[in-house]
Amino acid sequence: MSSSDEIRVAKAEMENVFHTVLLRYSFGEAKAALCARIFADNSLDGVYTHGVNRFSRFIKMVVEKHVLPDKDPSKINAFGGMEQWNGNLGPGPSNAMFCTERAMQLADENGIGCVALANTNHWMRGGTYGWKAAKEGYAFICWTNTIANMPAWGAKDNRLGNNPLNIAIPHNEEAIVLDMAVSQFSFGAMEKFAMQQKTLPVAGGYNETGQMTTDPQKILETQRSLPIGYWKGSGLALLLDILAAILSGGKSTFEITAQKSESALSQIFIAIKLSSLQNSSSINSVINSIIKDYHSAEPDNTSNNILYPGERVLQTREENTKKGIPVNIDVWNEILAL
Amino acid sequence: MSSSDEIRVAKAEMENVFHTVLLRYSFGEAKAALCARIFADNSLDGVYTHGVNRFSRFIKMVVEKHVLPDKDPSKINAFGGMEQWNGNLGPGPSNAMFCTERAMQLADENGIGCVALANTNHWMRGGTYGWKAAKEGYAFICWTNTIANMPAWGAKDNRLGNNPLNIAIPHNEEAIVLDMAVSQFSFGAMEKFAMQQKTLPVAGGYNETGQMTTDPQKILETQRSLPIGYWKGSGLALLLDILAAILSGGKSTFEITAQKSESALSQIFIAIKLSSLQNSSSINSVINSIIKDYHSAEPDNTSNNILYPGERVLQTREENTKKGIPVNIDVWNEILAL
Repeated sequence: MSSSDEIRVAKAEMENVFHTVLLRYSFGEAKAALCARIFADNSLDGVYTHGVNRFSRFIKMVVEKHVLPDKDPSKINAFGGMEQWNGNLGPGPSNAMFCTERAMQLADENGIGCVALANTNHWMRGGTYGWKAAKEGYAFICWTNTIANMPAWGAKDNRLGNNPLNIAIPHNEEAIVLDMAVSQFSFGAMEKFAMQQKTLPVAGGYNETGQMTTDPQKILETQRSLPIGYWKGSGLALLLDILAAILSGGKSTFEITAQKSESALSQIFIAIKLSSLQNSSSINSVINSIIKDYHSAEPDNTSNNILYPGERVLQTREENTKKGIPVNIDVWNEILAL
Repeated sequence: MSSSDEIRVAKAEMENVFHTVLLRYSFGEAKAALCARIFADNSLDGVYTHGVNRFSRFIKMVVEKHVLPDKDPSKINAFGGMEQWNGNLGPGPSNAMFCTERAMQLADENGIGCVALANTNHWMRGGTYGWKAAKEGYAFICWTNTIANMPAWGAKDNRLGNNPLNIAIPHNEEAIVLDMAVSQFSFGAMEKFAMQQKTLPVAGGYNETGQMTTDPQKILETQRSLPIGYWKGSGLALLLDILAAILSGGKSTFEITAQKSESALSQIFIAIKLSSLQNSSSINSVINSIIKDYHSAEPDNTSNNILYPGERVLQTREENTKKGIPVNIDVWNEILAL
């Protein structure tokens, strides 16, 4: 964003505004503070689609009673390092942060901990939880199912979610965080390309005659997006959904889709405590050696930088900390009016 | 395979032959039986590249002392549901089966179990371990790192492995098993397309001028294959390697590559005990509902069937059980002469 209708808002100010709005919409003090911080941090890290640009829609979900601000997770079942929790349709970000911390506690006690969460809401950005756990010394894997938004390989209609997957590990004082949906492009990303009248760098879905295309407008019309790796991402999306549903005892993508509203999701959080490993003292230097080798590859003749997952986030975070978070003035005014 | 130089060998006969050869190359009775069964089952399931077609190369690895037939895993470290084991350069299939069973035992005790294995060898087919654990009632995730065989997104030279990932769940009396490398096509698959003078169905790598191509011969020449989902698979491959290396305390892809031989790999095995979940009695019917919805999608205008991961394996297994396992006569004679 660099148009004239863009302003920059300091993170502290943005967090304050979110906090005040959330209190107005029946969030308790602690949960308002947590959710405000998560929405502001996501924006600071450049994930505007799941930060400031999503905030009004999040409030709409509260108003429509899909997200119940006074609800917290409750334990359904526990066995060793594996627990099942009910999210009780509480706010996705606070539910997911709770389960991330619970998985970390379980890892403290059991080496590895897994929390499976049913009946929760959109967690906004998977990276929130990966950065949190990795910065505190855990290897971390989490994923969520979604409403159906992607066809299986060989199919026309959307029966699969793009089920974002997050994998995170500590790296120096920060983290390496892979935060990816199983679709090649989100619909939000394709809308942005279409608005700028750009083609996608690689095929992102199908046109009206069933041909793969790099034209984002055509894909927005057909709503047929492509899974990463075609048949491979199709299989991965299916397995992530089944695991989320059966481990949590919650809803699968097809049941969420039948509701017509993306609510009552199922999510999985797995943490492994690195300080209990035999080689714990050398882990950071091993990761640095791997990244050094990774960065030393010869660049190809494209303009794609050789970055590890999360590397660009660090750059954006630094820039937005200095300059403020870029926000479209209309988006910001809508939030101020909530 | 349907050429005139192909024969069909019954699974029991194939397993017997493997067993006899393995005993001849210093495998103990139990390990020879286990490895013979794994190689025969992989062939029965149609994964010939990691079954009968790989057997002679496996024996070569034994002769060259990369694979040490008398070695078994030894425990390095244990904390609750998380254990680290040293594979001592033993046979990949027996090491991986041992760790699969150990992860299942840990899940019995802790709900979730994770075994991280260092210094092991090629496990042949990840699905072997997924089918095993899922058929015994576990949700199961495992992956391995490999020698570098894929460039990172934006890079020319191969610094990433294609790090096969396996995710499995029980399904009726069988299993749903996703068994995928993070590259779009294996080099073995591309060699097959090239031999048949066919183009790949989607781009699989780069030609000599750095353009993406569906010409398998060009990719075999440049050795530049594509990760699934481009930048996404590139990130996934990096994270799977880092996790395998740091959790096991073993070698990462760049260290394996420096050896020039694909040995001393790192692998992760995670099992979750489904019968200890609160909803355990309904899991099978939930999976059947999801698969029913998945299969009910409208087929597109390609000839790609809407299959769940592992569905084709069941068809091949049935056919090969009836007719025998198809083997090239030269491949079979080479094995008989070992």
